[in-house]
Amino acid sequence: MSPKKAMIILISVFSMQTLFAQETKVSAIAMENIKLDISLTAAGVPVYAVSYKNKPVIAPSEMGFALMDAKNLHSNFVLLSTETRSVDENWQPVWGEVKNIRNHYQQLNVHLKQKTTGLLLDIVFKVFAEGVGFRYEFPVQPGLKYFIVANELTQFTLTGDHKTFWIPGDYDSNEYPYSTTKLSEIDNAAMVAKSTSISTRVAPDNKAVQTPLMMKSADGVYINIHEAALLNYPAMQLHVNNNNYRLTSSLVPDAYGNKAYLHAPSHTPWRTILVSDQATDILASKMILNLNDPAKTKNTSWIKPMKFVGVWWEMQVGMGGWNYSDFPDSLGKDGKLIPNGKHSANTANVKKYIDFDAASNIKGVLVEGWNTGWEDWFGNWKENVFDFVTPYPDYDVKEIVRYAKSKGISMIMHNETSGSATNYERQLDTAYKFMNQFGFPAVKTGYVGKIIPRGEHHDGQWMVNHYERVAQKALDHKVMVDMHEPVRPTGLQRTYPNWMANEAARGNEFNAFSDDGNPAEHETILPFTRLMGGPMDYTPGIFKLKGYAAYAPERQLHTTLAKQLALYVTLYSPVQMAADLPKNYLAKADAFQFIKDVAVDWDDTKILEAEPGDYLTIARKEKGKDNWFLGGITDEHGRTTDISLSFLDKGKKYTAIIYADASDADFQKNPEAYKITKQTVDANSSLHLVLANGGGVAVSFVAVK
Amino acid sequence: MSPKKAMIILISVFSMQTLFAQETKVSAIAMENIKLDISLTAAGVPVYAVSYKNKPVIAPSEMGFALMDAKNLHSNFVLLSTETRSVDENWQPVWGEVKNIRNHYQQLNVHLKQKTTGLLLDIVFKVFAEGVGFRYEFPVQPGLKYFIVANELTQFTLTGDHKTFWIPGDYDSNEYPYSTTKLSEIDNAAMVAKSTSISTRVAPDNKAVQTPLMMKSADGVYINIHEAALLNYPAMQLHVNNNNYRLTSSLVPDAYGNKAYLHAPSHTPWRTILVSDQATDILASKMILNLNDPAKTKNTSWIKPMKFVGVWWEMQVGMGGWNYSDFPDSLGKDGKLIPNGKHSANTANVKKYIDFDAASNIKGVLVEGWNTGWEDWFGNWKENVFDFVTPYPDYDVKEIVRYAKSKGISMIMHNETSGSATNYERQLDTAYKFMNQFGFPAVKTGYVGKIIPRGEHHDGQWMVNHYERVAQKALDHKVMVDMHEPVRPTGLQRTYPNWMANEAARGNEFNAFSDDGNPAEHETILPFTRLMGGPMDYTPGIFKLKGYAAYAPERQLHTTLAKQLALYVTLYSPVQMAADLPKNYLAKADAFQFIKDVAVDWDDTKILEAEPGDYLTIARKEKGKDNWFLGGITDEHGRTTDISLSFLDKGKKYTAIIYADASDADFQKNPEAYKITKQTVDANSSLHLVLANGGGVAVSFVAVK
Repeated sequence: MSPKKAMIILISVFSMQTLFAQETKVSAIAMENIKLDISLTAAGVPVYAVSYKNKPVIAPSEMGFALMDAKNLHSNFVLLSTETRSVDENWQPVWGEVKNIRNHYQQLNVHLKQKTTGLLLDIVFKVFAEGVGFRYEFPVQPGLKYFIVANELTQFTLTGDHKTFWIPGDYDSNEYPYSTTKLSEIDNAAMVAKSTSISTRVAPDNKAVQTPLMMKSADGVYINIHEAALLNYPAMQLHVNNNNYRLTSSLVPDAYGNKAYLHAPSHTPWRTILVSDQATDILASKMILNLNDPAKTKNTSWIKPMKFVGVWWEMQVGMGGWNYSDFPDSLGKDGKLIPNGKHSANTANVKKYIDFDAASNIKGVLVEGWNTGWEDWFGNWKENVFDFVTPYPDYDVKEIVRYAKSKGISMIMHNETSGSATNYERQLDTAYKFMNQFGFPAVKTGYVGKIIPRGEHHDGQWMVNHYERVAQKALDHKVMVDMHEPVRPTGLQRTYPNWMANEAARGNEFNAFSDDGNPAEHETILPFTRLMGGPMDYTPGIFKLKGYAAYAPERQLHTTLAKQLALYVTLYSPVQMAADLPKNYLAKADAFQFIKDVAVDWDDTKILEAEPGDYLTIARKEKGKDNWFLGGITDEHGRTTDISLSFLDKGKKYTAIIYADASDADFQKNPEAYKITKQTVDANSSLHLVLANGGGVAVSFVAVK
Repeated sequence: MSPKKAMIILISVFSMQTLFAQETKVSAIAMENIKLDISLTAAGVPVYAVSYKNKPVIAPSEMGFALMDAKNLHSNFVLLSTETRSVDENWQPVWGEVKNIRNHYQQLNVHLKQKTTGLLLDIVFKVFAEGVGFRYEFPVQPGLKYFIVANELTQFTLTGDHKTFWIPGDYDSNEYPYSTTKLSEIDNAAMVAKSTSISTRVAPDNKAVQTPLMMKSADGVYINIHEAALLNYPAMQLHVNNNNYRLTSSLVPDAYGNKAYLHAPSHTPWRTILVSDQATDILASKMILNLNDPAKTKNTSWIKPMKFVGVWWEMQVGMGGWNYSDFPDSLGKDGKLIPNGKHSANTANVKKYIDFDAASNIKGVLVEGWNTGWEDWFGNWKENVFDFVTPYPDYDVKEIVRYAKSKGISMIMHNETSGSATNYERQLDTAYKFMNQFGFPAVKTGYVGKIIPRGEHHDGQWMVNHYERVAQKALDHKVMVDMHEPVRPTGLQRTYPNWMANEAARGNEFNAFSDDGNPAEHETILPFTRLMGGPMDYTPGIFKLKGYAAYAPERQLHTTLAKQLALYVTLYSPVQMAADLPKNYLAKADAFQFIKDVAVDWDDTKILEAEPGDYLTIARKEKGKDNWFLGGITDEHGRTTDISLSFLDKGKKYTAIIYADASDADFQKNPEAYKITKQTVDANSSLHLVLANGGGVAVSFVAVK
């Protein structure tokens, strides 16, 4: 640390002490190792602090807002009253990592009044065993009816220069690799500048990072900051002060630089802080789900987790294309588009995927590029791109749906909006009626490109409302939805149980269309960051790890084949793609057996080992069955671990089928080498697992009858 | 003229001469008194000039564009080729001022290529007997596919310091009174600052004015600049150079300051210049209609011009309200809105209007405030305001429609969007199906407030496209539409014959809710400005001209009663409201007879006398009938005129019923004094008409059988 920095920190600590010399203590609540303190500063600013095992984790941090028209809800507050409440209940998700979720917290409602204006502000805190959630509530009051949030002033003042796993605070994209630096080193400028993207990049503050933000202190405390139940509000990014380790809420703006248009009574999303000295606790936490509202419907029998294949990777690797024609502006002599002969979404080709599915215990086929408009869909900021109901001439919807149904397979709809949300909204009714008419149970949506309404961003309030409108429309039509390029999730899958998954991160596809691909550590970080908010459609399961893209033969995935299998367990999602080409699976049918077998819905989950950026081992029990599945992954470094199988049901015998890296496997030199072994195990057994550099291991535990 | 100004103009003329010393003449075309010259400057900038009776009207003026990414389509052009074409044809509008429209012009297509880039630009000119229209066309070409217009650089260089009738170049409103100044005096800052409005005002350039812009030169030449067929492009305002009288196209921007997102092949709207030494020629011109595309449908039998009354003025004058409750945020003990007892749109009240209509040869009843949401609809920039299908509890749609139908009356739907176009677009299908279901043949839409998408303006490209989407949706559902607070019209009523009228100007309503109201000259200017683009729903026919608003008893209309009658003829619209309360009509049933009788669709129109800002006299012949109607109005100065009735059908006798100002009438002191006389006339007769200060005269000519 430079002398200058040390001085700044000293001054900062001194200021805080001065400040708190005159503070008014409001209240404190605690649960297990977590303690929360609330105060008002001498200036009447509400301040909170969090400690873990009696050590400060969040130093005193201010709360409040700057509003438009020079109003604020920040200082000059006095305490009106507080209320506390204790809750301990259980609930069952429609689908998820566990069958039963405990919701156990202490609640503190703080009622504040601004002396100068009489304005009222409530702050509601919930303290769980693993962390804290709080949100602002704006009660009905004469002086605050419709109002505009200029800035949210919430601080998260950290107590040291923590190791941090971060991506830039981009208003439009989460599709970055993670940087691992100290808080003092965070600067996203270089990363933003070098990023290649299929989407737009807008990251004007080089000190801003996205949430969920994962940190680890020098003394081994893991801290995760995110938000829960992001509705009718922009995404919260965090502006990092490199000197005093203070993070400040930075909301994604609209065209006018305004943050949120609110109407009392209303409230913000929950700001969440998870803390533990066990990394596994962070992953096991259900606090974010608990802070979301219950499901909007009880009629959920139509919501079914599923695996699926897709007419997709073949386009990613250049074997075919989304577009039917290469000449969007000129038609042939017959007045029709001139086919380019490379259109993947054609009836015959799709039937091959259906046939493959039917033989593979996979129930869905996603087809991209089926509808007209792909000739010039990308990068033009074009408003009227797709109509979501008009297939290309070589795609026979009726026949494909008939054929799929005859084999017990469901077709998955694809609605790419190209970022033109206005165009999609105009056609939502038509699009979802079309899905109902032809029996599509699920839709993958996409937002590749700059947003229309122009001036809005993917992560701003308007688009947050848009995603909810889409989820609601899908719910109304009994369609499951998987959104690509939306705002990152915040646990809303509890409220909208048909909102199965999102992309909102750098997925496997970057291994196809970027030179860098995803680093070997990428999937060890995702669960601690992006996945904290909800399932990701990462599209795992690539078997051909080198030479898959003829147009860029040097590209390879930074993973072994066994690791690709492990991702079905370590990257939780109720919809999991088997992303590679059928022929690549058929060539390694023994390894593909794991993808056939692995479940997508679970009764129980055990986070066995975890270290962000390094490794992760998870075991899960199949929903309504006795089978367990285990996935273990590592970063670029090989790893050996002994895993106790004590999670297995006591007294039961299991056949463990172990899909491991071969002894000579290496994610760079020999990624596709694997070996499959079987052994009989029980809860008293342990497994000795050896993971190659960039490797992984997947295990099926089939209960012996 | 100050010495400084004279010097600037000399320099300016000198520059032009230098410029044109090296120019390349491209072509010239002419029709009757209008001549158009096209050149390329030495720098390769396309330049046009217009003369009238051999006197320059538009001095050499540059054309072209600045595009995004530092591209331009302005200089370095060379001429590739030109084509000419002559057209003389006739067509019949679905409804209009005349039965038959002649479309007679010389066309010149100029094909340009930019030397430096190879980019192609076409400019198409059409020269009519009364003026010039031109537009830019962007052909399909490799270097220009999707592109963004940063600025349009079209100039209109006037040749003198003309008298000009203008309103500010506001991005969101046309609801201003007209200023009459010299070009050198134009500055809108004071007008914008003092304006009261129900809408938003955004006029950042105090030298910008709205079109249609009406001017008169010192030597008596009338010049009108506007545009035709505004589709997929922002409205063109004009930036005025006070010193050299050069107007430059100034397009309404979006959130990013961008003007238009285009995709070749595409084109701009037509830029129109009308010129005549007769003011009446300007009003009689059909050039703007001729520059629009023919009707999109031939199935137009359901499109019917009509008069209507409305549950509307009673709210404007404070007798009732749009809102059902005064407490939007709190419900009564029954869980329902608490009625305020002042809600005008209730079933019993609406039936009174239906009864009045049935006795009055008026076929429509508009009801505002019928649907839920009016408690907090205004001024909150709120996105989800109205749903367009949910009536207030005291408004029984089914019963009202049944009752109206039983009396041969049509109910007119009202869809106020509050500027939230996104919300309206999401519900368009639902809203228009509702109209179809209940048999509403027409809808009045409204856009009071700041636009959502936030960052867009009423007059920008996105909203221009929105209005067209609404017109198309209405066409699809066979609904006539009357838009309030849209972009000002540009003749699109030809293409969308169901797009009956617009507001887009300062209507009669300002006499209710503003202290200033509309000045006496207002309606003598409107036909030369706003109405050049299309019909206006001005809502004439107020009979109670003082003391109508109990809450502001000092307010009065700046018009006599006879002038209110005359407006049904002078302010053309196929939908005309009888705006006052039934009781005020019943109190002056003899005068109301004119409103009962006057037609709303015409076989012929004669502009008999006109001087913008001073007076206007028009005669029109009823569609398919022998009857003629005449309207004459004046400004604040009384006027005497002798009108030859030579327009009447030769050899026919007519009973002329003359609704004139009483001899002691005066718009300020005695506005409601009128006298009605009858006489028998024919085409050889003339009428001696005396108009009071701020007065008018209306005449029915009923053919004697």
